[in-house]
Amino acid sequence: MKNLVMILCLALYTVAQAQDHSDMIDKIYAEQLNNSEAYENLRYLTKEIGNRLSGSPRAAAAVEYTRQLMKNYGFDTVFLQPVMVPHWVRGKKEVARIINSDKLGTYALNPIALGNSVGTGPEGVVAEVVEVTSMSQVDELGEALKGKIVFFNLKANLNLVNSFAAYGGTVIQRVYGASDAAKHGARAVIVRSATNFQDDIPHTGTLRYKPNIAQIPAAAISTNEADMLSGLLKTQDDLRIYLETNCGMQGEKLSYNVIGQLNGTEFPDEYIAVGGHLDSWDVGEGAHDDGAGCVQGIEVLRTYKALGIQPKRTLRAVMWMNEENGGAGGRGYADAADENGEKHIAAMESDRGGFVPRGFTSTGTDEQKARLQQWGTKYFKDKDLHSFDQPGGGADIGPLAQQGTFLIGLLPDSQRYFKYHHTAADVFENVNQRELVLGAAAMTAMIYLVDQEGI
Amino acid sequence: MKNLVMILCLALYTVAQAQDHSDMIDKIYAEQLNNSEAYENLRYLTKEIGNRLSGSPRAAAAVEYTRQLMKNYGFDTVFLQPVMVPHWVRGKKEVARIINSDKLGTYALNPIALGNSVGTGPEGVVAEVVEVTSMSQVDELGEALKGKIVFFNLKANLNLVNSFAAYGGTVIQRVYGASDAAKHGARAVIVRSATNFQDDIPHTGTLRYKPNIAQIPAAAISTNEADMLSGLLKTQDDLRIYLETNCGMQGEKLSYNVIGQLNGTEFPDEYIAVGGHLDSWDVGEGAHDDGAGCVQGIEVLRTYKALGIQPKRTLRAVMWMNEENGGAGGRGYADAADENGEKHIAAMESDRGGFVPRGFTSTGTDEQKARLQQWGTKYFKDKDLHSFDQPGGGADIGPLAQQGTFLIGLLPDSQRYFKYHHTAADVFENVNQRELVLGAAAMTAMIYLVDQEGI
Repeated sequence: MKNLVMILCLALYTVAQAQDHSDMIDKIYAEQLNNSEAYENLRYLTKEIGNRLSGSPRAAAAVEYTRQLMKNYGFDTVFLQPVMVPHWVRGKKEVARIINSDKLGTYALNPIALGNSVGTGPEGVVAEVVEVTSMSQVDELGEALKGKIVFFNLKANLNLVNSFAAYGGTVIQRVYGASDAAKHGARAVIVRSATNFQDDIPHTGTLRYKPNIAQIPAAAISTNEADMLSGLLKTQDDLRIYLETNCGMQGEKLSYNVIGQLNGTEFPDEYIAVGGHLDSWDVGEGAHDDGAGCVQGIEVLRTYKALGIQPKRTLRAVMWMNEENGGAGGRGYADAADENGEKHIAAMESDRGGFVPRGFTSTGTDEQKARLQQWGTKYFKDKDLHSFDQPGGGADIGPLAQQGTFLIGLLPDSQRYFKYHHTAADVFENVNQRELVLGAAAMTAMIYLVDQEGI
Repeated sequence: MKNLVMILCLALYTVAQAQDHSDMIDKIYAEQLNNSEAYENLRYLTKEIGNRLSGSPRAAAAVEYTRQLMKNYGFDTVFLQPVMVPHWVRGKKEVARIINSDKLGTYALNPIALGNSVGTGPEGVVAEVVEVTSMSQVDELGEALKGKIVFFNLKANLNLVNSFAAYGGTVIQRVYGASDAAKHGARAVIVRSATNFQDDIPHTGTLRYKPNIAQIPAAAISTNEADMLSGLLKTQDDLRIYLETNCGMQGEKLSYNVIGQLNGTEFPDEYIAVGGHLDSWDVGEGAHDDGAGCVQGIEVLRTYKALGIQPKRTLRAVMWMNEENGGAGGRGYADAADENGEKHIAAMESDRGGFVPRGFTSTGTDEQKARLQQWGTKYFKDKDLHSFDQPGGGADIGPLAQQGTFLIGLLPDSQRYFKYHHTAADVFENVNQRELVLGAAAMTAMIYLVDQEGI
């Protein structure tokens, strides 16, 4: 009897030990905080390569760079997954000029064409400007928009502490403004940049043309310029602007998702994907959006190798292609996973910038979400992460929902993101090394828990 | 009876209403997020005035600027509180040169003299270098340090997620290294910068000479240079350095704490102070350290006025002088409060940078700390603050403990602070507007709760 009790105690002890991952999580953090290669890899991706719009030569360079990088790290498999991507080209620098201001005479604005927009061509468009401050106003004005440039001036709600909520409330003008205005015969649209910062930098980003509506040119101006333009329109209703954009679609191009893999040792048929999107806008360097997520995803697997951890499940670092203006990579990855019978139990994306991590969002069953919260409270509180109950995931992993994958998003602090998002200011210098690395550490630790425990 | 019940219900309802401050806190946040003047005031303080070492002309300019600013805001009283401050001057740019490296020959380092340090004078010091990597090693080496330059190379513990903890573990070499080495006849010290970042920028900061020990010159070098120097010393034990610093104390000068006040309407004899320190190091612009805390403190009172809130208690925005190299302002303020019978029930300091707020630290009774936590959980969770249980306060408000004041510290995210702390990189451009403003909003909201409810 005494022996039985001892054996039982030992068994319980072993189980309890096996279930506590604090030591390994500390090791993961130590590896990242002392030896992370995320910052140097991001430097290479942003400074040696640069921005990486789908179909561009630098996007091809980024594919080759991350492929070689993961090869050199000795991951079990590194491969390219072909995807056809839209190839949009900005062309010659945009021009927007107020031409008849009573106050300013001729005045040059600093526009940036919206991604996927058609261009005006070198002849440009000259038209009177009509301002709208809500989407519903477009249909209310109706006929009055015919032949006009519609100026969408929906402002971010600054009262919202969460920057993504503020962004989410205004981005609709960028995405659908052009088609909504074109329905009523508008010739072009100018939109206020989707940001909760008040400054001089214009933000690009994709639009979506609705079917069976004329495709008209669209460009964004900075929040400061939007306020100035709005001010001028208050006292002059025949204000005209000359807009010239030289962008346009140049068909489809072959590109790739880049995938590095560590083979699972216990459940090799269960896959876990983690990463970010390799493409970026064609201004700035795509540092926060989303070079950060790419190098963090690679660090998850590199950390496994550095610490000699055997993954139970098959882990993949994935650099998705074409998140910004199509989402072909995310869809292609999920479709291939279905076709190949690669059952993904979980996928994690980092696509909210390389800022200090605050927690994780998730989409899945109540049990899965409760599990994530338990882990969060148990293992991440002393790492200064605290938010584990918000819904979310990521644009590239979203399509995996079709096979019931548990989706996890890294949740970094949101306050600085829209200072840089889709602008020339999204450069390496605006990424802080420790913040980037702490994100990689948190991601590795959470992937480790999912890998070891299942979900 | 029916009437009595109704009256009772109404009374209870009124009390319940009075005790919920959510609406006013939302208004405070809205005022800050839409109309804050913190960022523009910080721009003036940093770009139009610049850095502000105690006793310097620009410190005097900062006194006058903040005095005028608070006057213009129409605070009930604005006054200067005289304090005598040490006047330390850096003098001509420091020189440190390795002069006999087998590998590099002559090699120029980029040193920065430590605050309050004596200088070598223009003749400089040439001596062999001895490295120590712990404070106890100094006494172990003892006699061997005689005539040498002691190189303190204690490294920050990168495993610590909290940057202040990492800093706290190494700053002792900066504060006491010179005296510890001088005790054994060392001629000068060079210290590794107190930061958890690996880069090329040297960090200054104050030293303290212990009594009855020779005062020897001290300078810091960057973490990258410290690693390089350490590497050279591994293969060459007669490495010599020429060090020249031209700094020194120039006696005491008259300076001031700057105080703006809103008079209490119910309990005018109960004071609440909030602010930061107006002085800074003489490199960079003292933007995070601590221009941020100053402009945030002013915003607390400006927000009261903008929203027409009548303070129950007497509120003071205080710009303390001389936190960096003496602490005269904090001590002087507390002593004056004692002498004048100004009972401070609470004081709040923001001196950890203008980064996104994560919560508040505090020092006080268990009841007071519990109260702070209750408020934190009730009112700040939807503002994305979550840490209310850490001990702390601030260097300038610390002396108020002598009158039993409840001390509160704003707790911003710590990750970026030591990238800039005490360096040429602590400039306005490295402060994010929304982060700074959210700090001011959190401070105003918490001061409002203390003001309305007492503590």
